[in-house]
Amino acid sequence: MSDIEDDVLDRSAEDTADEARDSYALDDTLLGKLRAAVAARDPAAIDALITPLHPADIADLLEQVSDPVRAAWLRLWPSSIDGDVLSELYGDLREEVIGLLPDSVLQDAVRDLDSDDVVDLVEDLEDDQQEAILDVLAPSDRVAVEQALSFPEESAGRLMQREVVAAPEHWTVGEAIDYMRAHKRELPEQFYHLVLTDPRMKPVGYVTLGRIMSTARKTPLIELLEDSFRVIPATQHEDEVAYAFNQYHLISAPVVDDDGRLVGVITIDDAMNVLDDANEEDILRLAGVDEESSLNDRVIDTTKRRFPWLFVNLITAILASLVISQFEAAISQIVALAVLMPIVASMGGNAGTQSLTVAVRALATKDLTRSNLLRVVLREAGVGLINGLVFAVVMGVIGVLWFGSPMLGVVIAVAMVINLLVAGLAGILVPVILERLRVDPALASGAFVTTVTDVVGFFAFLGLAVVLLL
Amino acid sequence: MSDIEDDVLDRSAEDTADEARDSYALDDTLLGKLRAAVAARDPAAIDALITPLHPADIADLLEQVSDPVRAAWLRLWPSSIDGDVLSELYGDLREEVIGLLPDSVLQDAVRDLDSDDVVDLVEDLEDDQQEAILDVLAPSDRVAVEQALSFPEESAGRLMQREVVAAPEHWTVGEAIDYMRAHKRELPEQFYHLVLTDPRMKPVGYVTLGRIMSTARKTPLIELLEDSFRVIPATQHEDEVAYAFNQYHLISAPVVDDDGRLVGVITIDDAMNVLDDANEEDILRLAGVDEESSLNDRVIDTTKRRFPWLFVNLITAILASLVISQFEAAISQIVALAVLMPIVASMGGNAGTQSLTVAVRALATKDLTRSNLLRVVLREAGVGLINGLVFAVVMGVIGVLWFGSPMLGVVIAVAMVINLLVAGLAGILVPVILERLRVDPALASGAFVTTVTDVVGFFAFLGLAVVLLL
Repeated sequence: MSDIEDDVLDRSAEDTADEARDSYALDDTLLGKLRAAVAARDPAAIDALITPLHPADIADLLEQVSDPVRAAWLRLWPSSIDGDVLSELYGDLREEVIGLLPDSVLQDAVRDLDSDDVVDLVEDLEDDQQEAILDVLAPSDRVAVEQALSFPEESAGRLMQREVVAAPEHWTVGEAIDYMRAHKRELPEQFYHLVLTDPRMKPVGYVTLGRIMSTARKTPLIELLEDSFRVIPATQHEDEVAYAFNQYHLISAPVVDDDGRLVGVITIDDAMNVLDDANEEDILRLAGVDEESSLNDRVIDTTKRRFPWLFVNLITAILASLVISQFEAAISQIVALAVLMPIVASMGGNAGTQSLTVAVRALATKDLTRSNLLRVVLREAGVGLINGLVFAVVMGVIGVLWFGSPMLGVVIAVAMVINLLVAGLAGILVPVILERLRVDPALASGAFVTTVTDVVGFFAFLGLAVVLLL
Repeated sequence: MSDIEDDVLDRSAEDTADEARDSYALDDTLLGKLRAAVAARDPAAIDALITPLHPADIADLLEQVSDPVRAAWLRLWPSSIDGDVLSELYGDLREEVIGLLPDSVLQDAVRDLDSDDVVDLVEDLEDDQQEAILDVLAPSDRVAVEQALSFPEESAGRLMQREVVAAPEHWTVGEAIDYMRAHKRELPEQFYHLVLTDPRMKPVGYVTLGRIMSTARKTPLIELLEDSFRVIPATQHEDEVAYAFNQYHLISAPVVDDDGRLVGVITIDDAMNVLDDANEEDILRLAGVDEESSLNDRVIDTTKRRFPWLFVNLITAILASLVISQFEAAISQIVALAVLMPIVASMGGNAGTQSLTVAVRALATKDLTRSNLLRVVLREAGVGLINGLVFAVVMGVIGVLWFGSPMLGVVIAVAMVINLLVAGLAGILVPVILERLRVDPALASGAFVTTVTDVVGFFAFLGLAVVLLL
C-alpha cells in the first residue's frame, strides 16, 4: 500500500506550476514532527509546533492524526486547545476532544469565547457535557447562552451574536464616534454597521462604519442609511438567512424578535459557514452519505452511517430483479437479453441522476418555482427524448452488429427512448414532489428515481423483447 | 400536466408552520402580473413592478420568464436592466440579455459599475460583445479593466477590486480619519479595513474600522493591527482564496503582486460567491452535469451538455455487458444468474459512489492529505468489508429462499463481499489518483468507479457461479 501512496502523492518538479492552487494545504512535515514530539513525550516540542498555528489549522491537525496520537498529544499538552480551536472542530471529534481535556483547560477555553460561539459549541453536545460547560460560565453569560438555546435549532436566533452596536435614530456622526470611544471595551471584535433604532428598539436602518468615519461630525446618522438594510426574524431558518446574505450581498443584518425589536446581529462569516455546510450536506446526501460523516469516524460508525442508503438500494435492486424474474423464460431462450439489459437500466439511472441533481439544486437556490415548473418539466422531457433517440440509434446499431439481429436492435432502441424519457420526467418530478411533502429532496430523490429507471428499463426492454422477438 | 403541477405545488394551511423556511421565494403573483403587463405592452406597468425590486430579484425574474416574454419585456422597457442586474445574471442568459439591450441602455448600465464588476461582466463574453462594452468605458476605467483581465482566469487578480483604502504605517488614528473625510468621494462603497503599507507599498498589516473609530485620535495605527492579517498573491487561484477566507474567517484581505506590493483587495462577499460556485460545480460534476448548465438553456443546449457523460456511461455499460457475454453459457443453464446479477453490480456502484463522494469532498476541503491517506484507505476498505459481510448474509439468505439453492446463496454472498470491498477501495483511490494527475476528481471519478464496480460485480458473481454451480 505504501508504494501506491508514494507513487500517487509524491510531488514532482512539474507541480510547481500548480502551486498557486494548493497554497493552504497543511505542511506534511509538520504532522511528522508532531508525531515525533508526541512519541518523545515532549510537551515543549509540541507547544513550539502548535503555538504559531491558526486555531483552524490546529483543528485540522487534530482531525488528521490517528486516535492514539491525538489522545497522547492532549494528555501531554492539553493547553494546545483553546476555545477557538474547539469552535473549529466538528461533530464527534469535538465531543471526543472535550472528553479528553482536563476540566481546568476546558473551563479556560470556554470562558474566552463569545456567547454565540459557546452556543455553537454546546448545542450538539450530550446533556452532561453541555451542563459541564454551562456550569463554568459567568451567570450573565450563562443566561445569554440559555436564551439563545431557547430559539429553535438552526434558527437565526442560534446563529446571531447578541452584542450589537446600536444607536438612537436621532444621533449625529459625532455622538456615535464619542459613544464608541467611551465604550470601546464593550464593542464586539468585529462589526461593520451601526444599527439605528427607534425608541421601542426597532431597527430603522444601518450605517456603514466607513460612511461614519468619512462624514463630518455634525451630520445626522439618519442621512447616511444604506439601501441594503434588511432585518432577519430570530425564528427564521439559518438556510434562509444564508440565502438572503448570498442573494442580497449582505455583510451584516440585525435580528429581531416577534415584536420587531432588535435582539442581535448576524454577520456574513456566519452566513458563509451555513451556506458551505448546506452545500456540503446536499453533496453528501445526494450520494447517500450521512451529512454528519467525517474522515475521523471509527470504521464501525462509518459503516453504520452508510448502511441505511445501501439497504434502500438493496430493496430497489431486488425490485428490479423481481421484474427480471418475470422474464426468465425469454432470457433462457435469448441469452443476449441478459447481456444487453443492464445497458438500458444504467443509461436511465445516469440520465435520471443528471435531471434530479439539477432539480435538487434549482429547488435549493429557488430557481425552480411554481411559475416555471411546467416549462422545466417539458424541457427535461425534451432533453430525455432527444438523448434517448440518439442513444437508441447508437445502441440499435451496436445490437445489430453484435448479435446480428435487427429486431434486437429495434427492441433496445425503443427501450432506450422510453427509459431516458421516463428518467428525465422522474428526475424533475420526484424532487419537486418530495419538496412539497417536506422531505429533503437531496436525501430521498436518488432512491426513487433509480427505482423508476431500473424497473422501467428492465420492463421496457424485456417486455418488448417478448412481444417482438418470441 | 397542469393537474399534477397544482397538486404538487398548491400551498395548504399546514404549510404556514414551515413558512420560516421559504421567506425569500419570489412572489408567484409578481410573475403573473409581469406577464400581464408585457402582454398588454404597458411599459409603465412593467416599470412599476420592477422598480421596487432588488437587482438580484430582477435577475431571478429574467431567469424565470420564458424566452418570448423576456424578449418582449426588454423591448418594451429595456431600462429595467442596470449594471447591477447584469452582474447578477449568469452565463448564457447574461449574453442573451446583453444582446437584447439597446446600446444606450447597455452603456449606462456598464458606466455605473465598479471596475471589478465590469471585469466579472466581460470576462466570459464573446470578443465582439466584450469590445463593445470596453469601448463605452472612460479611458482610465478601461485601463483598469484591461489590467485586471491580464491576470489569469479565476485568479485573485480577476476577483479583487482595485480601490483599496491604505495608509502609511506611521499614521495615527486622527490622520486616518482626516484623510478619509477629505477623500470621501474616492472611497469604495464597502470597506472594512484600513491597510497599512511601508514606503515601497508593501502591506504590513491592517486595522478594522471599528477599532479606528473607538480609539483616541493620537494613537498610532500600528498599535491597532489585527492578528487575522494575511495577504493574497494576485496569481493565486480563486478557489484557494475562498478556502483561505473560509478557513481563517477573513473579512477582507489585501492582494499583492509578485513583488509583494499592494494592488487590490478581496472582500468576503466575493469569496462567498466563489465558494458557492465551487460547491455548485462539484455537485453538478459529481452527477455528470456540465457546471455551466442552467434551467434557461435551450433544450438542444442542455441535451448537448448532458450527452458526453451519458456517452461515457454507455462505454462503461458496454464494457460490463462484454463481461456478461463471456458467461452466456452459464446464464442459459441457470437463468437465476441473470435475475440476481444486477443486484451485486448495483450495490457496488452505490457503495463506490458513497466512498468517492466523501473522498472528492475531503480533497476539496484539504482534509484528505498525504499524511492520512493510508489510514483513510484502510478505513474505507474496512467499511466496505463490514457492509459487504452484512449484505452478503442478507443476500445469501434471500438467494437461498428465493431460488432454493444454498450454493447460489454462497455465490452471491461472496461476490457481494468482493464488490463492496473493491468499491470502497476504488472510491477512495480513483479520486486521489485523478487529483495527482491534475484531473478534477469531481468530474471523472464517477465513470471510473462505476466501471470498476460493474465489471468486478458481474465478473465475480458470474465467475464464482461457473466455478461453484456448474
